[in-house]
Amino acid sequence: MSFSLSSGVLVTIIGEAVLQDQLIHLLTKLGVSGYTIIPAQGSGSHGRRMGDMAGYNTNIEIKTIVAATTSDQLLLDLGPLQANHALIAFRQSVDGLFD
Amino acid sequence: MSFSLSSGVLVTIIGEAVLQDQLIHLLTKLGVSGYTIIPAQGSGSHGRRMGDMAGYNTNIEIKTIVAATTSDQLLLDLGPLQANHALIAFRQSVDGLFD
Amino acid sequence: MSFSLSSGVLVTIIGEAVLQDQLIHLLTKLGVSGYTIIPAQGSGSHGRRMGDMAGYNTNIEIKTIVAATTSDQLLLDLGPLQANHALIAFRQSVDGLFD
Repeated sequence: MSFSLSSGVLVTIIGEAVLQDQLIHLLTKLGVSGYTIIPAQGSGSHGRRMGDMAGYNTNIEIKTIVAATTSDQLLLDLGPLQANHALIAFRQSVDGLFD
Repeated sequence: MSFSLSSGVLVTIIGEAVLQDQLIHLLTKLGVSGYTIIPAQGSGSHGRRMGDMAGYNTNIEIKTIVAATTSDQLLLDLGPLQANHALIAFRQSVDGLFD
Repeated sequence: MSFSLSSGVLVTIIGEAVLQDQLIHLLTKLGVSGYTIIPAQGSGSHGRRMGDMAGYNTNIEIKTIVAATTSDQLLLDLGPLQANHALIAFRQSVDGLFD
């Protein structure tokens, strides 16, 4: 089977829904124009920050596939948001059909 | 700890909601009977194709775990859909509890 | 670029929505306090278990990032649920911003 797949880094950001515009702005600043948003519920904590919030929360999950260097910059830029907001982000290498 | 886990390839397809029946038909044709569908919003572009669409869009995310060879065939079969539709697909190796 | 990322194991559990309380109880028992829940639809089968269910179903997807040893225990504890419920679970290594 001969066909060519792209390689990239899937970055998943899960955070409070109020962060949506800020996160999209950050992605746009980095030249990331494609992303997918899914509404989510979060509970408990991913560490103390999320533990500060009681019960169920309205979160969003944003996924995007970017180059490795862009994923570095994205995670670096997301870090300061954790000071005041419940937010996690993680990344994984993927291959497939995308630009 | 002694217990046995399965290994497989998680394929995630994100595309326009109107593709849902076509994607399920494709999965069925490949003998894939198990999948999960989550409604999603997409914006901007994963490349020019998605860039043709304005603003927010109604998308779906379909996930399935298949054998490596099936994931090859699935990505190969999805390719032509990108000519006329906003669609990306990517895969990752996973292990866990599944058949 | 110098910044420090955490490493962990992303565990994704997809199962019948009726399992939600039981799954959260299991996570809590293992000391996992942070997780994300997304409503999902499942269809067909991930093996015979899900094949027993007709048509579309109301499922949930629960995601959490844990230590590797915790992911072992979690998958071990989830196994028995598969006897009576449609449930799959899989894991992947990730790095990023989380505790």
